[in-house]
Amino acid sequence: MKKLKRSARLVEMTQYLLFRPHTLIPLTTFADRYNSAKSSISEDLAIIKEVFEEEGLGDLLTLAGAAGGVKFIPKVSKAASLQFIQGICKQLEQPERILPGGYMYMSDIMGQPFILNEVGKMFATAFSAKDIDVVMTVETKGIPIAYATASFLNLPVVIVRRDNKVTEGSAVSINYVSGSNKRIQTMSLSRRALKEESRVLIIDDFMRVGGTVHGMMDLLKEFRATVKGVGVFVESGEVEEHLVEEYISLAKLSGVDPKTKQITVEPGNYFYDGV
Amino acid sequence: MKKLKRSARLVEMTQYLLFRPHTLIPLTTFADRYNSAKSSISEDLAIIKEVFEEEGLGDLLTLAGAAGGVKFIPKVSKAASLQFIQGICKQLEQPERILPGGYMYMSDIMGQPFILNEVGKMFATAFSAKDIDVVMTVETKGIPIAYATASFLNLPVVIVRRDNKVTEGSAVSINYVSGSNKRIQTMSLSRRALKEESRVLIIDDFMRVGGTVHGMMDLLKEFRATVKGVGVFVESGEVEEHLVEEYISLAKLSGVDPKTKQITVEPGNYFYDGV
Repeated sequence: MKKLKRSARLVEMTQYLLFRPHTLIPLTTFADRYNSAKSSISEDLAIIKEVFEEEGLGDLLTLAGAAGGVKFIPKVSKAASLQFIQGICKQLEQPERILPGGYMYMSDIMGQPFILNEVGKMFATAFSAKDIDVVMTVETKGIPIAYATASFLNLPVVIVRRDNKVTEGSAVSINYVSGSNKRIQTMSLSRRALKEESRVLIIDDFMRVGGTVHGMMDLLKEFRATVKGVGVFVESGEVEEHLVEEYISLAKLSGVDPKTKQITVEPGNYFYDGV
Repeated sequence: MKKLKRSARLVEMTQYLLFRPHTLIPLTTFADRYNSAKSSISEDLAIIKEVFEEEGLGDLLTLAGAAGGVKFIPKVSKAASLQFIQGICKQLEQPERILPGGYMYMSDIMGQPFILNEVGKMFATAFSAKDIDVVMTVETKGIPIAYATASFLNLPVVIVRRDNKVTEGSAVSINYVSGSNKRIQTMSLSRRALKEESRVLIIDDFMRVGGTVHGMMDLLKEFRATVKGVGVFVESGEVEEHLVEEYISLAKLSGVDPKTKQITVEPGNYFYDGV
């Protein structure tokens, strides 16, 4: 690449870093790319680091030494996250969302890539320090959140199927009891989708009793995998006891009253003290 | 916000634009945000525009006048796309992907957010000039590509279900004939998921005869919607006649031989002349 002015270099480096989260980039990569001295690159990075941190975009870690370089860790502050989630809670409380059976319509919210990206960034922030190999979810509604999270963590996604699809090859299946209606259901994961002993982050859109998440944990045992974290977008607060003990929720549905059309949604346990 | 130096402003504006594709941003937004004169902002934008265009990140459109501003249109060149797709084709040709029944395993590729983002950017480039309201797909495997595409186009996603889920409210269902195995299947879309007369971009991961895409088109008629485009990641070249006439494919599976374990995948019609 031709030699760039500092101003052009800053624009170029900013986009380069933003599109490569959780990836170690040696300073020589930038020095070669822009035909510039490492000292100039270091100065550029200091400017970018300051703006990223002031703007709450995340951290820019500098690792010294021969194997050193720079790594962008996308992060969003608790305060900014809370403000965003409060807006979502308000939307979720719209009375017209109540469906027959006390269910809540939220496909419109789950259909907004902008919202999912923010949600993904929150999970990526919450689990940024964990050593994770892969993000896992079960079809269907958790899929977009899992991808958004994985995208910010620079990790692959594996999807557990509700049945054993022929296009996945040999698979491990388990039966589990769905917490809400106590029915026995099946979920399966392709053998080749997950390496043995992987460290896994489980992400899902909704958790009531936690039967589905618990099922995923059982399934992971078959792969001798370790669960490094569980993140759910909305949890139901109507349940006394969960099958899953440790998890992070971003919102909590504490009540749906089909008679009065009253829905109550509040920020989840991610925003409590001590979590 | 406090007054920023040009260098910091460039970093800030770059990230602001990258995260807001297809969104008109008035110059006053930046002028207020950085407490700077519009003339300085215009100079900054000229620098950013030049880097974005040289790097093949997309266009930065400037709209003059009272309702004017700047709009970032993410784009990736045909040449860069072709190079990327050729790498994917090579991966898809690995003999161990052949599954019983002549199916091809591609969940590992579909599980990489980095690949999906590139694929989404290609579709966003191909359909950037169309007036689209919403991106539609059918569960399950097309979902991540649809979100990646929608994210670059700044559009919502609607997901057609294979059955009528209770959590979606009243829905429109149709029967369609799956091209591959001639079975009659059902797909449905929630009434409230799609406004009447919407302009829709259909995205899916795989197309053989086109029965599923054709089914989605039929379903859209029930919503008096217009199909503005169809994009499939991989099409099967083993089919003589498709049920769908106009579509863009990024890759073409021209042969799977379970005996010799030979798979042939080539770039799709997006890369032919005249498409």
